[in-house]
Amino acid sequence: MKSQQNRSDLKSFFEPKSVAVFGSLREGVGLGYGVIRNMLQFGYSGKIYPVSPSYSGEVLGFRVYSAVNDVAEPIDAAIVITPPPTVPGIIEQCARKGVKAAVIVSENFAEAGAEGAKFQQQLVDIVHRTGIRIIGPNTVGLFNAANGFITNPYLIVQKKIRKGGIAYCSQSGYVGTAAQPLEDRAIPVSKMCDIGNKCDVDEADLLNYLADDPETKVVAMHLENAKDGRRFIDAARRVVVRKPLLILRPGRSEEAARAVASHTASLAGNEQVYDSAVKQVGAIRLDTWLDYWEVPKIFAYQRLPEGNRIAILTLTGGVAVLGVDVAVSAGLAIARFLPATADKLKRIYPRLSSNPVDLGPILSVSDNPFAVEEEVIALALNDANVDCAAVSIYAGFDDIVAPIVEMFDHLKERITKPMALWIYGMKLSAMDEMSRQLETRGLPTYFYLETAVKALGVAAAYARIRAGLEE
Amino acid sequence: MKSQQNRSDLKSFFEPKSVAVFGSLREGVGLGYGVIRNMLQFGYSGKIYPVSPSYSGEVLGFRVYSAVNDVAEPIDAAIVITPPPTVPGIIEQCARKGVKAAVIVSENFAEAGAEGAKFQQQLVDIVHRTGIRIIGPNTVGLFNAANGFITNPYLIVQKKIRKGGIAYCSQSGYVGTAAQPLEDRAIPVSKMCDIGNKCDVDEADLLNYLADDPETKVVAMHLENAKDGRRFIDAARRVVVRKPLLILRPGRSEEAARAVASHTASLAGNEQVYDSAVKQVGAIRLDTWLDYWEVPKIFAYQRLPEGNRIAILTLTGGVAVLGVDVAVSAGLAIARFLPATADKLKRIYPRLSSNPVDLGPILSVSDNPFAVEEEVIALALNDANVDCAAVSIYAGFDDIVAPIVEMFDHLKERITKPMALWIYGMKLSAMDEMSRQLETRGLPTYFYLETAVKALGVAAAYARIRAGLEE
Repeated sequence: MKSQQNRSDLKSFFEPKSVAVFGSLREGVGLGYGVIRNMLQFGYSGKIYPVSPSYSGEVLGFRVYSAVNDVAEPIDAAIVITPPPTVPGIIEQCARKGVKAAVIVSENFAEAGAEGAKFQQQLVDIVHRTGIRIIGPNTVGLFNAANGFITNPYLIVQKKIRKGGIAYCSQSGYVGTAAQPLEDRAIPVSKMCDIGNKCDVDEADLLNYLADDPETKVVAMHLENAKDGRRFIDAARRVVVRKPLLILRPGRSEEAARAVASHTASLAGNEQVYDSAVKQVGAIRLDTWLDYWEVPKIFAYQRLPEGNRIAILTLTGGVAVLGVDVAVSAGLAIARFLPATADKLKRIYPRLSSNPVDLGPILSVSDNPFAVEEEVIALALNDANVDCAAVSIYAGFDDIVAPIVEMFDHLKERITKPMALWIYGMKLSAMDEMSRQLETRGLPTYFYLETAVKALGVAAAYARIRAGLEE
Repeated sequence: MKSQQNRSDLKSFFEPKSVAVFGSLREGVGLGYGVIRNMLQFGYSGKIYPVSPSYSGEVLGFRVYSAVNDVAEPIDAAIVITPPPTVPGIIEQCARKGVKAAVIVSENFAEAGAEGAKFQQQLVDIVHRTGIRIIGPNTVGLFNAANGFITNPYLIVQKKIRKGGIAYCSQSGYVGTAAQPLEDRAIPVSKMCDIGNKCDVDEADLLNYLADDPETKVVAMHLENAKDGRRFIDAARRVVVRKPLLILRPGRSEEAARAVASHTASLAGNEQVYDSAVKQVGAIRLDTWLDYWEVPKIFAYQRLPEGNRIAILTLTGGVAVLGVDVAVSAGLAIARFLPATADKLKRIYPRLSSNPVDLGPILSVSDNPFAVEEEVIALALNDANVDCAAVSIYAGFDDIVAPIVEMFDHLKERITKPMALWIYGMKLSAMDEMSRQLETRGLPTYFYLETAVKALGVAAAYARIRAGLEE
C-alpha cells in the first residue's frame, strides 16, 4: 500500500515550484511559447525555464537555456512538446537533472503506430530505470485552478477559470480547459487532467491524488479503459469514501469499443465488468457529455440532500410533469408536503398546496411576484418532508436578472437544503447572465430541467452511498 | 371524413384578416394592450379591433370599440383575455357577429376547480350551438411566423422569429414563443400553438391542419393526453404520410400522470396504449425537453438521409467514441468507407482512413487546416456507403467563426446529404455566433454531440417510415 501511495503522489505535477519547457519558442505560434503564455495568463508564479538548443535570449521575459542541465536551480516539472524521436532523450536529461514529473504533450506515440509505440516504450523504460514520472504522451495534460499551472500549449481565450470544487479527468483532450466555456459559465474547477496514452501515470494514480486533494469536492472522470482494474477499483473506493466519483464511460457498444481500440491503442474493458465494478465501489455512472459537465456542480457548493424527496417548483404545470418523470427515473421520490406547509401555501393561493408546485397562476396575478415566489420556495424547502428542490426560474429578459438574483440572496439565508435551478427564457444574454450570477453565489444552474433534476438524483444517490459506508 | 376535415380547418385562427381583442387596454401593462403590441412587433398586418366597454379613443393607433357589434366590417378571429365570468358572454357576442375563431387566453377555467369548469362548459355549449371555434381557455394560444399573427399577451423581447419549417404544438404555455431564445438561436418556425384546456380545438384538429400546411415541414408536439384517441391516431397518420411527427409525451410515471391530472383537469392516457399507437402510425417519440426543441431542426432544411449509415467526424478520438455509442443506440450504423475513399483519406493523412474520423492529428499539423477539413468532410459525405454525418466544429474563439462558416459555404456546394453539426468551444459568444450563422445557411447545429447524432437517428428513422408507407 505504501508504494502505491507513493506512486500516486502527483504533487510535483500539480504544484511544481519550477518548470522546464521543451518546445518551439517561436513567438506567437510555437507550442513551447504557447504553454508559457498560458501559464502567465492563469497566474502561475513558479519559476519557468524555457529550454531550446536552437534559441537564445529571452522568451516572454524568461531566459532560454540550451540544455536543462544548464539550469543551476532544482526543477520540479517539465512540459515536453517536441517531435517523438527527441522525447526519450529529453526525458532522460530531465531525470538526470532531478526533475520529478514530466508532462508529454506531443502526439504520434503508441496511438499512431509501431514507430511511435517504440518511442513510448523507451519512455516506460526510463520511468522504471530513473523514477521520473510521466503524464502522457498524447495529452493536453493538466490544469490547477489553485496556482494557475497549466500544460496546455494551445490558445485559451478564457482569462480566468473559477476556483472551485470540481476535478475533471479524462482520457481525451476534448475534456480540457479549451473544451468548454468554463469562464462564461462560471464553472468551479479544482483540477483538470487528461492522462492521454498513460505510459506511466494512470487513472488510479489520479484518483488516489484527488481523493486526498482538499480543493477537490467531486471527481468527474471520462474513462475509456482502466490500465489496471484492481488498482482502479481500489483508488475509486478511496475517492468514494471522501467525495463523489462520477464516471462517464463511452465504448458501451461493440462499435464504440472498436473505436476506442483504434484511437488509444488499447482495448476497451469488458462492459459488464466495468459496470459492476463501478457500482460495487459506489462510483456513479453518467451517460452523456452534457451530464459530465453539468451534473458535478451540484456537489461543488451545496450540501448533500438528507434523503431523496424532491419538491419541483415550476412556472407552468406542463413542465412540472416533465420534471416528475425525470425525478422518478433518477431515483427521487416526489415529496408530500406536511399539512402545515400545505395550509400555508393554500393561504397564499388555493392551488399551491401540493407538489409539484405550479407558480404560474399566482405569479401572473401577484403585485409582488418575487416576494411570493421567495415565500413559496422557502416554505417548500423548509418542509420536513422535503430533501431537495428543482426550481425553475424565468430569464425572459435582461431586467429580470437583478430581482431574481436578489430573491436568491434572501433565500440563501432561509434555506440550507440543496437546490438545482433550471433557467429558461427567450434571451440568451439574460439566461447566461443569470446563470453566471447565481453560480458565483453557490447555486447550481441548468438550462434543461432534466439535467437539474438528474443532478439532484445523483446527489441523493451519493448521499445514500455515503450513509451506507458510514454505517 | 368531410366533417372532420372541416372541424380541422383552423385557417381563421392562423390566418385571420381581422381580429377583435378583448382584455385590459391599460397602456404598457394591460394584457389586451400587450397582445396588440406583440402583433405589431411581429408585423401582423390584418385589421385590429380593440373592444372594451370601459375604454374609449385609441390604443396603439387602433380605434377602441365598446362592443364587437359596433364594428361594421367582418371579423375573422377574437382574442379574449378577460375574467372567466365575462368570457361566455363575449364569445356569444362574437358568434353572433360572425367571428369564426376565438382564442381564449384567460386562466381559471376547468383547471382551477368547479366554478371555472362551469364557465368552460358554457363555452362548449356555445361552440355546439353556434359553430364558433375556440382554442383554449388557459393558453398563450398561437403564433404564425408567416404573417406575424400572435395571441400571446405577455412581453416578448424577441424582435423577430425566423420563418421556417418547424411547427411546435403543446399543451402548456412553456412551449411557446416566450419559452426559448428562438431569435438568438435562429430556430426556424412555421407555427406555434398551445391548445390549453382544449374545450374545442384539440390536438387532432391541429395535426390535421398542420398536415396540410405548406409552411410546416415537421411537427413537434408536446402532448399530455389526447382528447379522442381515435381522431388523434387518424390525424397523426395524416401528418406522418406528409412530414415527420415528433411527440414529447410526459406523464410516463404514475406520479407524473397524477400531476397531469391535477394541472389539466383531465386524465393522462394509458402509457402503453399511447406508445403502441404512436409507433403504429409512424410518429416518433422524443424523451426530453432538449430533444423537443433541438431535434426537429434536422428536418427543417435538410433532405432525409437515404439510409442509416453515419460518418462521425470529430477533432479528438475520445469524443468520436461517445458519438458512436449514441449513434448505435439511436438506430444508426457506423458507415464503412469505400476503399477508394479510404485511399484518398490515407493520402491526406495515414490515420484518416476509417470512420469515425479523428481530424485532430492532421489539423494540428496542417498549414491550411480549413482546406483539409473541407476536403475530408466532402470525401466522407460523398462516399456511397455514407448516408449522413455528424461533424464536430470548434468554436474556440471569435475569429474562428468566419473561416468555419466560409468552409461550410463551400461544402454546401459539394454535399447534398444531411449533416448535423456539433459546436463546442471555450467562448459562448463564438459558439452562439457560429450557430446563428450556420443555421441561417440551413445547417442544423447542436451544442451537444449526443443531440446532433440523435437528430440524425430520428431523421433516418423517419426516412425508413416514409419508405415503408410508399411501398
